[in-house]
Order: sequence, then structure tokens, then C-alpha cells
Amino acid sequence: MSVAEQMLRSHPDERDEANRDRVLECVEACLACAQACTACADACLGEEELDRLRECVRTDLDCADQCAATGRILTRRTGGDTRLVRAVLEACAQACASCAEECERHASHHEHCRVCAQACRRCERACRELLATL
Amino acid sequence: MSVAEQMLRSHPDERDEANRDRVLECVEACLACAQACTACADACLGEEELDRLRECVRTDLDCADQCAATGRILTRRTGGDTRLVRAVLEACAQACASCAEECERHASHHEHCRVCAQACRRCERACRELLATL
Amino acid sequence: MSVAEQMLRSHPDERDEANRDRVLECVEACLACAQACTACADACLGEEELDRLRECVRTDLDCADQCAATGRILTRRTGGDTRLVRAVLEACAQACASCAEECERHASHHEHCRVCAQACRRCERACRELLATL
Amino acid sequence: MSVAEQMLRSHPDERDEANRDRVLECVEACLACAQACTACADACLGEEELDRLRECVRTDLDCADQCAATGRILTRRTGGDTRLVRAVLEACAQACASCAEECERHASHHEHCRVCAQACRRCERACRELLATL
Repeated sequence: MSVAEQMLRSHPDERDEANRDRVLECVEACLACAQACTACADACLGEEELDRLRECVRTDLDCADQCAATGRILTRRTGGDTRLVRAVLEACAQACASCAEECERHASHHEHCRVCAQACRRCERACRELLATL
Repeated sequence: MSVAEQMLRSHPDERDEANRDRVLECVEACLACAQACTACADACLGEEELDRLRECVRTDLDCADQCAATGRILTRRTGGDTRLVRAVLEACAQACASCAEECERHASHHEHCRVCAQACRRCERACRELLATL
Repeated sequence: MSVAEQMLRSHPDERDEANRDRVLECVEACLACAQACTACADACLGEEELDRLRECVRTDLDCADQCAATGRILTRRTGGDTRLVRAVLEACAQACASCAEECERHASHHEHCRVCAQACRRCERACRELLATL
Repeated sequence: MSVAEQMLRSHPDERDEANRDRVLECVEACLACAQACTACADACLGEEELDRLRECVRTDLDCADQCAATGRILTRRTGGDTRLVRAVLEACAQACASCAEECERHASHHEHCRVCAQACRRCERACRELLATL
């Protein structure tokens, strides 16, 4: 069992139990995507053809910031405002979609872009699936 | 001239000049709001009646995270995806509205909630005014 | 293979290969600890005896912030300043030690504090082991 | 009075009053530096000679992350562990010194590097002055 799952299961509030797997998948997808985007921006920075990767660095950094914020907000289970959570999930799904599109353009040249695009698509999907239940 | 304004004026890309004041106001409002929300959550934690401030701490922390991410994303002016920026501004405006509503409930008892609610309303307004131009 | 490991292996710079496992363990421990601390602060906020958990919330939030920053900084492999990385690892090891001490006080009453203390101790160890190689 | 100062003055804990100006200067310097470094990394990304600015982008991003974490941790006044605060301030002073050194190399060519280096030096000084009182 991952640390995130152990933490979720030990939370004093029991509500939302039915949704626990979707919340957990979304938290873990956000954290993995934030890390992948931070790593991809940095790997781009080390590439010879950096000049053609400016937009990729930019979108990576934006996506990393939004995913990190979303992962923290979803981690919180005490109280909270559904309108806020919904808007944050929408923003995160869009950030992931934008970053995935950009990374997919470079996926055949750079393995880090290929892996990062996958992490973005997983996170986009997890956000949309959680949104559908709210 | 604030550091944020000096940085914005020295950016190599000149596009968006007409919108510069709105971007700058939004960046500064996001940073001030993130700081105020972090401080308000902590001040609540030091209050005797902490029991009645749980929801306030929660919404403060969520709003701080979203404002910090939005402030970073808006600070970036190289390239970027308008769909992403728009979704992030929508999420930030909602996070600020939710947090302001909660803090306003406690504003007559706690000066930190009153000041924090003001910072949230300023940031909500700045996000909506920038959104209207995108 | 985790996303973080795939990203590390696809980085254009090959230097540091000998140290790759230690860097990877430290990145993953930082991310897991940041998430656990964010979750523990929130779980404390939902506990009836919140009054006795103020210090735990505080240290959780501080540790979450330092671990998140450290995880991002360590994720970057292009260039970088060893003095900076060393100081950040020292700060992270101390944040984890402080938070673990506090959470251990509540570990017999709250499962989330027990799990969080473990995540802190793992991260403290990973930081110290990486420090020993720099 | 800035929002940060209003928040600090309305905190329920009165201890540390003598040190309030130093804490406030350090919080504000951290926030301004984090924003300046985020902006400088992005401005570098938009420069024609990006190839020569790789190290500057890297150090900017690291410094932004450490300053943001330090600004949040210092903002908290309820409880807290002095060993943790001290280690975080040391890390932040080093991150600022490293980033200032790098930005100073480009200060005559790029106004954003010149302004960013100033923000780093101010933050480094504020951290060291606060450290001297702990």
C-alpha cells in the first residue's frame, strides 16, 4: 500500500469512502505528473536543440505548478468547498492536456517528452474521472 | 517600481504590452493573497476557538496553493497556452471567492480573517478582469 | 519502473550515473513525505482533540513545504550548484527530523501521525545518505 | 502597511514582537525573490542567446523553489521548531547567493538578470540578519 493510500485510509472523516480509489488515483497522478514535468523541463534545458524546446519548457513548468497545487488540495479531506475543488480539477485537466500536446510533438526525439506526455495524459484522465463524480 | 514590475518590463517579449498593468496587478494580487492565506491559516491555528475555524484553515490552505501556482504561471510571458491560463485564472477566482466567503464569516472576530478576506476579494477581481481580456 | 526513474534515465546528462539510485530514492522520499505531511496536517484538523495537535499541524506544513522544494531541486540534473544542493538537503533532513519527533509523540493515538513519522524518517535518511556522497 | 505586515500584526501570538521587522523583511524579501527568479528563468527562455543561459535558468528555478518554501515557513508564527527555521534560512541564504552570483554574470547584458540578482542579494541579507537573532 502506498504512503498516500495509508494516509487516506487513516483520515478521521469517513465520508467519500466510495470515491476513495478515484481520489487516490488522482492524488498520485498529480504528484507523478508534477515530478515528470519538472524533470522534462530540466531535461529539455540540457538538450542541444534547446532552441526548439522553449515552448515545451514553458508548458512543463506551468503544468508542474498546477499539478502540485491540485495534488495538495485533493489530499485534504477535512471540509472543503466543492466549487473550488471542481474548478481546480478543470484547470489541472487543461494544464495536463496542453502539456501532453506539446510533449507529444517531441516524443519521437526525446524519451523524456514521451514519458512526460504519458504522465500528463494519465493525470488529465484521473482529473476528468473524478470531476464526473462531483 | 516593484520588483515584479521591473521584471515584467525587462522581459524580451514585447507582445501584451497593452495588458501589462492587468497582468502585473494579477501577479501581485496572487502573491499577496497566497501569503495572507498562509498567515491566516496559521493565525487560526493559534486561536483559542480553533475548533470553530477548521473550515477556515482548510480553505485558506487551498487558496494559498492555488494562488501561488497562478502567480507563477502568470509570471511567465514566454509562449504559453491561453486555454491553460484561462482555466487557471478561473480556478484561482473560485478559490479566492470560496476563501473570502469563509473568512468574511469570522471577520468581525478576527482581524486576520478580515484582512485575508480583503486580499482574496482583490485577487478574485484581478483574475476576473484579466480573464475578460483573454 | 516508476515515472521518476524513467525520467531520470532519459536525462541527456549522463554524469552522476553512479549516484542515480541515491538521487532517485531521495526524490521519491521527498515527494512521499511532502504528501504525507500535507495529509497529516489535514487529518489532525479533522480530529476531535485538535487542540493538542497544533504543533503537529505546524511542523507538518513546514516539512511539506521544505520536502516539496527539495524534491523539485533534486529532480533537476542540468548544471546546478553543489553548495545550494547541500544546504537544501541539510534543511530537508532537519525539517524531517523535527516533524518525525513531533508525529512520533502522537503515533500511538493517530495512525496518520505514525505513517507520517515513518515517511519523515525515510526522507531524513535519504537526504543524509545523499549528503554523504556530495 | 503591506498585507504581510497587517497579517503579522493580527497574529494571536505576541511573542517575537521585538523581531517583527526582521521577520517581515525576510518574508517580503523571500516572496519578491521567488517571483523575480521565476520571471528571470522565463525571460532567459525568451532570449536569443538561451544557449548561454542554461545555468542561469537552472539556478533561478532552484532559488525560486527555496525562497517560496522559506517565505511560507517564516510566515507561520504558531509554535514551530527553531532548528528547522534555522536550517531553512541557511539553505535560503545559500540559494540566493548562488543565484545572485550566476545572474551577476549576465547583469550587463540582461536587465532581468540585474534586477533578479538584486532581489537575491536582498533576500540573502534578510535571511542572514534573521539568522543572527535566532
